[in-house]
Amino acid sequence: MIVKMKPKTTEKQVAKLINFFKEKEIEYLDISSDEYHAFRLEKTPYLKEIRAFDEVELVLPLTKRFSQISRENQAEDTVIKVKGKTIDSKTFSIIAGPCSIESEEQLIKIAKTLKKNKIGFLRGGAYKARTSPYDFQGLELAGLMMLNRIAAEYDLITVSEIPSADLIPLFEEYVDIIQVGARNMQNYHLLKALGKATKPILLKRGFGATIEEWLMAAEYLFVHGNRNIIMCERGIRTFETYTRNTLDISSVLAIKELTHLPVIVDPSHASGRYQMVEPLSLAALAVGADGIMVEIHPEPTKALSDGAQSLKPSKFTTMIEKIDQLLPLFDKKR
Amino acid sequence: MIVKMKPKTTEKQVAKLINFFKEKEIEYLDISSDEYHAFRLEKTPYLKEIRAFDEVELVLPLTKRFSQISRENQAEDTVIKVKGKTIDSKTFSIIAGPCSIESEEQLIKIAKTLKKNKIGFLRGGAYKARTSPYDFQGLELAGLMMLNRIAAEYDLITVSEIPSADLIPLFEEYVDIIQVGARNMQNYHLLKALGKATKPILLKRGFGATIEEWLMAAEYLFVHGNRNIIMCERGIRTFETYTRNTLDISSVLAIKELTHLPVIVDPSHASGRYQMVEPLSLAALAVGADGIMVEIHPEPTKALSDGAQSLKPSKFTTMIEKIDQLLPLFDKKR
Amino acid sequence: MIVKMKPKTTEKQVAKLINFFKEKEIEYLDISSDEYHAFRLEKTPYLKEIRAFDEVELVLPLTKRFSQISRENQAEDTVIKVKGKTIDSKTFSIIAGPCSIESEEQLIKIAKTLKKNKIGFLRGGAYKARTSPYDFQGLELAGLMMLNRIAAEYDLITVSEIPSADLIPLFEEYVDIIQVGARNMQNYHLLKALGKATKPILLKRGFGATIEEWLMAAEYLFVHGNRNIIMCERGIRTFETYTRNTLDISSVLAIKELTHLPVIVDPSHASGRYQMVEPLSLAALAVGADGIMVEIHPEPTKALSDGAQSLKPSKFTTMIEKIDQLLPLFDKKR
Amino acid sequence: MIVKMKPKTTEKQVAKLINFFKEKEIEYLDISSDEYHAFRLEKTPYLKEIRAFDEVELVLPLTKRFSQISRENQAEDTVIKVKGKTIDSKTFSIIAGPCSIESEEQLIKIAKTLKKNKIGFLRGGAYKARTSPYDFQGLELAGLMMLNRIAAEYDLITVSEIPSADLIPLFEEYVDIIQVGARNMQNYHLLKALGKATKPILLKRGFGATIEEWLMAAEYLFVHGNRNIIMCERGIRTFETYTRNTLDISSVLAIKELTHLPVIVDPSHASGRYQMVEPLSLAALAVGADGIMVEIHPEPTKALSDGAQSLKPSKFTTMIEKIDQLLPLFDKKR
Repeated sequence: MIVKMKPKTTEKQVAKLINFFKEKEIEYLDISSDEYHAFRLEKTPYLKEIRAFDEVELVLPLTKRFSQISRENQAEDTVIKVKGKTIDSKTFSIIAGPCSIESEEQLIKIAKTLKKNKIGFLRGGAYKARTSPYDFQGLELAGLMMLNRIAAEYDLITVSEIPSADLIPLFEEYVDIIQVGARNMQNYHLLKALGKATKPILLKRGFGATIEEWLMAAEYLFVHGNRNIIMCERGIRTFETYTRNTLDISSVLAIKELTHLPVIVDPSHASGRYQMVEPLSLAALAVGADGIMVEIHPEPTKALSDGAQSLKPSKFTTMIEKIDQLLPLFDKKR
Repeated sequence: MIVKMKPKTTEKQVAKLINFFKEKEIEYLDISSDEYHAFRLEKTPYLKEIRAFDEVELVLPLTKRFSQISRENQAEDTVIKVKGKTIDSKTFSIIAGPCSIESEEQLIKIAKTLKKNKIGFLRGGAYKARTSPYDFQGLELAGLMMLNRIAAEYDLITVSEIPSADLIPLFEEYVDIIQVGARNMQNYHLLKALGKATKPILLKRGFGATIEEWLMAAEYLFVHGNRNIIMCERGIRTFETYTRNTLDISSVLAIKELTHLPVIVDPSHASGRYQMVEPLSLAALAVGADGIMVEIHPEPTKALSDGAQSLKPSKFTTMIEKIDQLLPLFDKKR
Repeated sequence: MIVKMKPKTTEKQVAKLINFFKEKEIEYLDISSDEYHAFRLEKTPYLKEIRAFDEVELVLPLTKRFSQISRENQAEDTVIKVKGKTIDSKTFSIIAGPCSIESEEQLIKIAKTLKKNKIGFLRGGAYKARTSPYDFQGLELAGLMMLNRIAAEYDLITVSEIPSADLIPLFEEYVDIIQVGARNMQNYHLLKALGKATKPILLKRGFGATIEEWLMAAEYLFVHGNRNIIMCERGIRTFETYTRNTLDISSVLAIKELTHLPVIVDPSHASGRYQMVEPLSLAALAVGADGIMVEIHPEPTKALSDGAQSLKPSKFTTMIEKIDQLLPLFDKKR
Repeated sequence: MIVKMKPKTTEKQVAKLINFFKEKEIEYLDISSDEYHAFRLEKTPYLKEIRAFDEVELVLPLTKRFSQISRENQAEDTVIKVKGKTIDSKTFSIIAGPCSIESEEQLIKIAKTLKKNKIGFLRGGAYKARTSPYDFQGLELAGLMMLNRIAAEYDLITVSEIPSADLIPLFEEYVDIIQVGARNMQNYHLLKALGKATKPILLKRGFGATIEEWLMAAEYLFVHGNRNIIMCERGIRTFETYTRNTLDISSVLAIKELTHLPVIVDPSHASGRYQMVEPLSLAALAVGADGIMVEIHPEPTKALSDGAQSLKPSKFTTMIEKIDQLLPLFDKKR
């Protein structure tokens, strides 16, 4: 059993609750954080009494591990507002851009493609999490500033991946939506810090993470104060090697069923093959996802990373046309 | 290198080829089967000469392991004709029915639901492959005959899973499409025997099988004489346990890319949850699958097997309506 | 709830039990097999009464799915006797031989290596389950007879994999221990038929099978009459590709904990690398396995199958010496 | 191709190399880090000339991705010295302690058990990476200081997991070996920072990470300056759920084959079951691991985390006795 008190509970009220535990011989463990007081209890018959305490916000069984982001806690879908656009269940949000920011020229070409197709979100990696220390690690701050500058010029909302908590102030300044990469999904230090960030978080699923662990990562963000969370399925690691990862398209349904958060799909990383991006995007729409995030590049064969899974602008445009034909049938706009 | 000779090659012509191997000191291994002569060779510079032999049908590198079912071997999509209907890339074939055949009454209710929705294919398990010896093992022959009788009455095409090669004559008599279950996908004895069957084969992917192994299983059927193969993705086994299996929707794209065979999706086994069947079916259509196979049951909670993943007739009807709305956008009929 | 009656129960006694079900309005499903009568029941308060029926052998909850092979059912370890040797928990049984039987010359060389090292069991594949239809499929009957002949000459006990139920009479004649391959572990038709075989069964774990499913496959054999079952862990399929499979060494402990059956390890298929065979064999002994099955070949580079994982005779001899040093420390002989 | 220059190369020498690239029209990408200059090149025939440049330290193909930690780079095994003890291939290092540091009393009891058994390394978690935000997050700094104090008193070497780069100064002060947890194995920000730490790093394998990715994480540490790396296999995530993870015991062999680094096994996390810890530890020794890390707790059932996988002191003592019997047979001491 978890007992969570309201954020501004006074020490006196906390002491009162603890006294009650002692009086009734309820074994408890203090699991308070900087933001709130909380306790883990052994099973007790005094649930009703504990719930009745004024400052107790939440009493939840340990089996129901993600409580704040759950449907039970909030029936209606979360609507995330960012610079005049919304990410929610009535919209099919399309986020596109290069894996790595390489140059102004590259970003401008992509920004133009986005505007032509009325796409509002530009993604681009500045700090790259690369498996090899010898791979291109990104343009770092220069890239972030470049992204910010071009996005402002073309009126685009930006998404970029954060590598560590110490860069939060920088990301708060230059980026509109902060991405947590798959490899950092269980970097709890980062999640706790981002809980206090003011920008929405795009939380990628770890490739080795279960749906439950992914939800718990979102719960970390939520409990620590950030309620604007966009879940992003990007494929899991299985024995199959034909695709880079295995897109777990059913996870979209699980997220919609269990939580009130929006969920999008990244078909580029899931498949690792540009030929699969369009059909998987259409499948994402059909299954009920709230959007997609895809990699595009003016010249995929010259990309410094992920060229094999990046769409050319022309193929991207064709894909958007197909999506637009389907949207009305799924009661979505974009 | 594999050298395969034409089916009716005479012994004399075979001897001529073997002589050539000996003359040129090419190491070879005889891998002939009952149907044809074939040899595995070490690398040789005499490829052109070998190809030039009259009765040599195929010379293929060992890396290209599924050759007969490959796009290179046949560019146009295979069209499977069965009792006036076709299963092919221009059609979205819908196969539905109970996991297990339980009674005439049950089958009649389902047959009526199918006719109402203009569905042409009735599936039903008579010989059940159950993990536990204590689980219901199916009505066996009685079930098969029941299926055949009701299908005839309602003019439906039947699909049922075969448990072993010795039942092929029975299945040839009572069933229109013979299903190879996931657990038997690498039962090569069964595959070889079904190569000589006259009925089309619905080949389910093993839950632990790679796409390549699945293709090789199809190649077994093809090489042994049966060219009417329908591939069926039904989910693979991963670390995720929220769903019964993980639907590998990208595998549909791989099959379409690599082979000329039709491929369908089984969202019922893939998810194990009836709530997911409709959205996953729409996703299958959107990704480019040639059909679906779904489990329906008049009273899912009373089903002897797989109740949790079976649709009620009313939900099935709703799903078909949505599919019908989408079909024109994907240039498919059903 | 499963109710299983004794094998020779009369129809009259069965009718009596069924009457009791009807009287008490207990819903039941007849799941009798050719060998015994059995019923699956809905939850009922009349358990005690049912257990009291004379001919009821077993009443077991559905959650306890492998009951006959369980420790609860038999506390002491099963001892399998075959031609004067035993496979059991006090012995470390070593089975060795080629992946595929290729020639008399090959088998004789291996038989001599075995005798030199006082190994009692010779394995050899005659009917090969190969992923590709173009791979060497084995010498079939000729191979089986060759194995039998050489084994008789050198006084060895033979192990060979059976591809299908129709070959049981042949295997009964020529082979001492019948192997069920990983790909056939859930071929229930084969398992049921082997339940009636008189020879012990070596049951390999399917590479995509959970421990529970593997146990259920053993339960099939046991329930259908064959109590001489040797479990064999041979690696499972995971995302790791450095080794052919991932040896699940902990599964040995699970089998020993849950069942009374002996369990051995196949380090050759598990790793796919001959360099790993010795250390993994030592690990198998250390963890508590009752033996190993390894592939050896006089000239691994010329093997028609699995050369990369086959030990040369000299390396095999070195390994046996190390095992012999360790045996006393684990209270095992061989 | 990767070209890496020596750490203190002057700008002039770098310019000279770049000029050579331009002259010969070799396309290159600057991938220099703070510590050294490096370039990624397209294929070029001028390899010999590039290698001949004075300040070029390393030219390596892109396929050979972990070069510094590879056997090719250093044939002899790495020996890690810490406070008078060594972790290397001639020793079987045993690290033991509680999952979470809970109290002085708990630590003292464990320290006494260690001394009694002549164990030199005490592990204990102060900053816990917990899947749920509601789980006990560790005593944090208080725990770290407690660990340091008790270890000093009992002359033990400490191991504790670091949650983020900003705590490196604290860990440098209070801990002897810094552990990177499985969930942070691909937290490259942390790895880069730890590359500059002076303390040895115990690098746990991510539960979803391939052996290659794990090696690349070690390469990050090495390239950034820290050569004292202990690899730790702790189980990977597979479809099997009987154990918490699947111990990939073969990975020990892969690490020994490919690198010069020591590798140990954590049977507690791998299995999640205390009953399996002893036999898996013996298997680790038998397979050739350089040590183990196990969880012990005075009263496992009261542990705040991982109680089910923690050994009682008495069982730990029994295990150490068995290990001591085996050590001479494997030419190891401890």
